[in-house]
Amino acid sequence: MTSEREYVTAHLEDLHADLDAWLRIPSISADPAHAGDVAASAEWLAEALRRTGFPTVEIWPTAGAPAVFAEWPSADAGAPVALVYGHHDVQPVDPLELWDRPPFQPTRVEGPDGPELHARGAIDDKGNVAFHLLGIRAHLAATGRATPAVTVKLIIEGEEESGSPHFEALLEEKRDRLACDVVVVSDTGMAAPDVPSAVTAMRGLADAEITLRGPAVDLHSGSFGGAVPNPLHAMAELLAKLHDDQGRVTIPGFYDKVLPLSDRERELMSRVPFDEQAWLAGPAASRATYGEAGYSTLERTGARPTAEVNGMWGGYTGPGHKTIIPAEAHAKVTFRLVSDQKPQDIGPLLESWVAANVPAGIEAEVHTPPGGVAPCASDLDSPHMDALLAAIGQAFDCDPADVLFTREGGSGPEAAIVEALGAPLLFLGAGLPTDRIHSPNERVLLPMLYRGAEAAAHLWRELAARAS
Amino acid sequence: MTSEREYVTAHLEDLHADLDAWLRIPSISADPAHAGDVAASAEWLAEALRRTGFPTVEIWPTAGAPAVFAEWPSADAGAPVALVYGHHDVQPVDPLELWDRPPFQPTRVEGPDGPELHARGAIDDKGNVAFHLLGIRAHLAATGRATPAVTVKLIIEGEEESGSPHFEALLEEKRDRLACDVVVVSDTGMAAPDVPSAVTAMRGLADAEITLRGPAVDLHSGSFGGAVPNPLHAMAELLAKLHDDQGRVTIPGFYDKVLPLSDRERELMSRVPFDEQAWLAGPAASRATYGEAGYSTLERTGARPTAEVNGMWGGYTGPGHKTIIPAEAHAKVTFRLVSDQKPQDIGPLLESWVAANVPAGIEAEVHTPPGGVAPCASDLDSPHMDALLAAIGQAFDCDPADVLFTREGGSGPEAAIVEALGAPLLFLGAGLPTDRIHSPNERVLLPMLYRGAEAAAHLWRELAARAS
Repeated sequence: MTSEREYVTAHLEDLHADLDAWLRIPSISADPAHAGDVAASAEWLAEALRRTGFPTVEIWPTAGAPAVFAEWPSADAGAPVALVYGHHDVQPVDPLELWDRPPFQPTRVEGPDGPELHARGAIDDKGNVAFHLLGIRAHLAATGRATPAVTVKLIIEGEEESGSPHFEALLEEKRDRLACDVVVVSDTGMAAPDVPSAVTAMRGLADAEITLRGPAVDLHSGSFGGAVPNPLHAMAELLAKLHDDQGRVTIPGFYDKVLPLSDRERELMSRVPFDEQAWLAGPAASRATYGEAGYSTLERTGARPTAEVNGMWGGYTGPGHKTIIPAEAHAKVTFRLVSDQKPQDIGPLLESWVAANVPAGIEAEVHTPPGGVAPCASDLDSPHMDALLAAIGQAFDCDPADVLFTREGGSGPEAAIVEALGAPLLFLGAGLPTDRIHSPNERVLLPMLYRGAEAAAHLWRELAARAS
Repeated sequence: MTSEREYVTAHLEDLHADLDAWLRIPSISADPAHAGDVAASAEWLAEALRRTGFPTVEIWPTAGAPAVFAEWPSADAGAPVALVYGHHDVQPVDPLELWDRPPFQPTRVEGPDGPELHARGAIDDKGNVAFHLLGIRAHLAATGRATPAVTVKLIIEGEEESGSPHFEALLEEKRDRLACDVVVVSDTGMAAPDVPSAVTAMRGLADAEITLRGPAVDLHSGSFGGAVPNPLHAMAELLAKLHDDQGRVTIPGFYDKVLPLSDRERELMSRVPFDEQAWLAGPAASRATYGEAGYSTLERTGARPTAEVNGMWGGYTGPGHKTIIPAEAHAKVTFRLVSDQKPQDIGPLLESWVAANVPAGIEAEVHTPPGGVAPCASDLDSPHMDALLAAIGQAFDCDPADVLFTREGGSGPEAAIVEALGAPLLFLGAGLPTDRIHSPNERVLLPMLYRGAEAAAHLWRELAARAS
């Protein structure tokens, strides 16, 4: 048993106690009524970091919720700097009635893969941040060091679940304090409990709202039906054209900056064990797969861009019927982006496509808010990646070459960190696809957290060993 | 000047006073808060009919709002019986802020075509019913009769604007009291102020709600987007297929009972003056016409069946974005029916079509409520129609052969009256396409009402003259 594992195993109650206390704070950033709880969550984390030993701990206010910054400098001359990114806010809990247990009373449940802890934020992202508190102590104890082998910084924001609206400004303002050689994102997970893996990419995100306008007012469908354009028909026809019969997005130019998947990338993805029927029966809760022809489900969700209609509305939606041709129809569409696609390029492409695809008599408006998220990825062949694979391999008792690569289909502020700080990304997270993040009954599998702490402990030593 | 016109002209103030009092009662049947007003409206009408001279006047309760029945028997042996149909309830008034004047304070406005009266219900349908009060008095005065030349019955219901939910039951219950030789529907209008015309048909109505279900819960579009079927995409694709590129409804069997328009019917419709640009700029408030290829706008709105999506919704519709694949998508669709189409046939046709057009992984449910409205039409070559044309011709100072035929695109309980009573239909109404019925600033052109009263006065005499 490694010394890191010995330390972690001997101090699990510290991790449990920390997580239990933190999860009781309902730090829902999307709900203004919980602003005080988000602030309390930042205070709790700051105090926990001080207690862990970080000599510098600061709460950084933003125009929204506060972030927590901590720094533990390495005494070694020329030691590299690693910056851990995570967040201390959580998703809303509605529909509350679908929770089997109160979401802010963390509860231990014995599951088929070991003990689970159920609570909102159990893994996303308090669990993923909390394992670092134990991890750095294990690193110091196992190596007999007074300071870590690399300078460890943490930036734990408070608005990730609300789209990180003030995080870019904070990165800009604190760029010097956050300067680092590598960013360690701890907000993701692994393929399965027995499948040690590292995320290597996240998709980007662009969003848009489409409004189609027909008659100036809602019209009586008896008097006018069949003779003037109906915006709902036009919206249906428009959105039906968004994908071709191969499941490809039809917007001209959409794929221009998408790099083809290399044979090596496809081979790496194909190594990840994936039971499609179990996946459909699990959180996907769907009756069939569907998507772009020529790609596997893991490729579709991780490595290919998408256009997804998230909402659509117009006309009469109450009980019974109302015989109108409505004045307007609306749709919300988001795009997941990969490789070199940029969110700011999507709006103009979409606008041109919509303009070319609405019938006479229908006026179209496309609203694309500024911002969006660029896709981001790790370099598979860097010394940093070697360090990560070595750390995960030791935590999971496997050869580093057997650590698999996965891709995260979601989007976060990671690309903005890369952009602001110019440092490469690593992903170290202890979540599982079955953890029900953002849904009722979120949980963390506790053995995964323990291994996360171990991997973090190993990572600082492995990164230092490979510093040039 | 006819004696009927002399009487009407000398008694316009009676019509004004009646209408003014009646329009002040906000008899909105759709709003339970106005149930007392609907009852008061029935009471007012009953009293006005007694004052007019009807020997029998009864308020008939229903499971909803009350109807008013009146009967004035002709003393002539073998005189035919005519039943006037109308309604005393009115549409809701929202959005109230779009009214230039309070909707229940009738106001005279001088318009380009003569004096107008602005109020909710001014023409739909209190104006159309009120002219009969003056009309029957003019008939008696002009002919010197103590009783009308035909037995005149009226059935004026109180729930037409709510879909007449209890009217069929009332027709059933009171079939004997309502027995008649001809039904005179007074709930429509003419093509233009200077274009005397008679409606000859109304479209029927069938309605349906389509629900498509995909994942069991809303899914995170980052984790699942691009890999499972999205019910909103499926709904867009389904509704986009509802019409082909010729604007025809694609549901197999939909047109099976639609009789082709005869050359005579098309010729009659083409005589109706129609300024398409003015129509688009008016209440249609649309930028272009659209519809089934090969048919004029008047044919599309009056003589052809349609499928119209009245509402569509699903997923996230709030501010900003929410990156979900929603569990469900919904649409409300109504069909306007013509010739021999039956509302009860539409549901099964739609269900089969939906089932054949949803992708794997999407579950479809089609809800078609019982009821609906059958299409109905007048016989153009009957003695009753000759009587109507003669009456309109005298009121409008034109040859009966110059009275044009129009078709009403909307739907009402007329077909149910024909079904219950077995009598043919005539339509005599004083509305205009520009009267803004169901919309803010509803009005009636008063000279049209005066001519309506005259035509009603002539009609009873003309019907008696043609009785076999």
